[in-house]
Amino acid sequence: MKLCRFGPLDQETPGLIDDTGMLRSLKGILPDITVGHLSPEQLDALRAINPNTLPVVSEAPRYGIPFSGAGKYICIGLNYRDHAEEAGLPLPSEPIVFMKAISALTGPSDGILVPQHATKLDWEVELAVIIGTKASYVSPEKALEHVAGYCVANDISERSFQMQTSQWDKGKGCDTFGPLGPWLVTTDEIADPQALSMRLDVNGHRRQTGHTSNMIFDVRSIISHVSNYMTLMPGDIIATGTPAGVGMGIKPHPVYLEPGDVVELEIEGLGIQRQTVKANS
Amino acid sequence: MKLCRFGPLDQETPGLIDDTGMLRSLKGILPDITVGHLSPEQLDALRAINPNTLPVVSEAPRYGIPFSGAGKYICIGLNYRDHAEEAGLPLPSEPIVFMKAISALTGPSDGILVPQHATKLDWEVELAVIIGTKASYVSPEKALEHVAGYCVANDISERSFQMQTSQWDKGKGCDTFGPLGPWLVTTDEIADPQALSMRLDVNGHRRQTGHTSNMIFDVRSIISHVSNYMTLMPGDIIATGTPAGVGMGIKPHPVYLEPGDVVELEIEGLGIQRQTVKANS
Repeated sequence: MKLCRFGPLDQETPGLIDDTGMLRSLKGILPDITVGHLSPEQLDALRAINPNTLPVVSEAPRYGIPFSGAGKYICIGLNYRDHAEEAGLPLPSEPIVFMKAISALTGPSDGILVPQHATKLDWEVELAVIIGTKASYVSPEKALEHVAGYCVANDISERSFQMQTSQWDKGKGCDTFGPLGPWLVTTDEIADPQALSMRLDVNGHRRQTGHTSNMIFDVRSIISHVSNYMTLMPGDIIATGTPAGVGMGIKPHPVYLEPGDVVELEIEGLGIQRQTVKANS
Repeated sequence: MKLCRFGPLDQETPGLIDDTGMLRSLKGILPDITVGHLSPEQLDALRAINPNTLPVVSEAPRYGIPFSGAGKYICIGLNYRDHAEEAGLPLPSEPIVFMKAISALTGPSDGILVPQHATKLDWEVELAVIIGTKASYVSPEKALEHVAGYCVANDISERSFQMQTSQWDKGKGCDTFGPLGPWLVTTDEIADPQALSMRLDVNGHRRQTGHTSNMIFDVRSIISHVSNYMTLMPGDIIATGTPAGVGMGIKPHPVYLEPGDVVELEIEGLGIQRQTVKANS
């Protein structure tokens, strides 16, 4: 099942994408898709609805974040071998956990706002895991039972802010640095989260080509690890790291985003995001 | 004005502390104190209530977090000269920004749960700033206009988790690592946030003695700085750093918290927290 929210910011309508790729409105069924709808029981109830009974939305809408009420946004750093190498950093022996400010969340194609004084605005296509049920000290074997589904995420980063001090969060949490969606694709459609291809283009040039099989720590290990340090709640987001090909790593000279650039990113089965970079007026 | 929430977890009743130090219930006035009540207008409306008209709560209650719906919890690292020195780290030239998981928030005296595998559980008394109105790119001169009030915070840290990788968030965000309160003291009672004494005792031994005048970056500079990187929203929390005297810095040997230890901390005008350390069963 592919769940989504569409329409103007803060007035989104719940919807789903049917098997033919058509958007259908869930407005008559529930007022919104919230973190309360991410449990197995609630998702089963939505799955029991025959999509053909739902009204088709024919115009191409704006998509919002696919559920409301996210609590925390956790990121895993340097989780692809090739990306750690391009960053010139040793492979981590433990997952590197940092956080993105929740205020950075934005619809998948709302655009990227260049922060004032930004000089090194960069992209990172990532598989985002959406937690469905509370998870504390879960084993890797049981970890995927706590997942509601998956989304495309762009872990947008400003490298000079990120490296200004030892702590990365300042360069990861700017407004619009957290595009999420277009859909929350539930686990029944993603048999194996380690079997997904991913790509990111800037202005039509392929910059990142990756595959989730190349993660250093796989999704179940990440969830288990993080759950040893903090309780994961329904609607928590974990971005699982990015493959090689970020702007910072381009040789001989890094390439960073400028106003007018267009970033397009996709993960197999999870949809496409397309962001235009906009100057901060 | 001293606002609070008291009663069982997730069923807290709103209240205030009157000029004689008595707790009075706001239950008849509003169902809860939320981030929506932190604007100047809403705080003025609460301030217009004559506390003598409110019922006195005579029993000593449990206090919860003094408002509900906090969005993000930002921390500033190494912001007192003496603490940077005890940590053996250079004085920062820019504020070091990291984040505490929102799931770590807990009432001021609910207790500290030792995470599994913890070996270096430490304390940090800190002045927490509670944002009242949205703030983006605010100047230091205007920054305090965005503050609803102040709280005592204990930025509880597990040093081995914190130092396991380059990123500190993993050792800062464990469940119960964010006691906040007992009160939200509004700005009319705190003429100068840089004029507050603070202390923390462990089992009756004074461990931290500090004063907010010794911050490297003062409250208005911190708010301005953070607002250049992310929009601050009503209910966002900024913990502004801790003075010397944490367990990690004790010579000749660090001292860490053990089950049964009692931590008591206080900031001038903001109340007292008292936490018992509890084993994770």
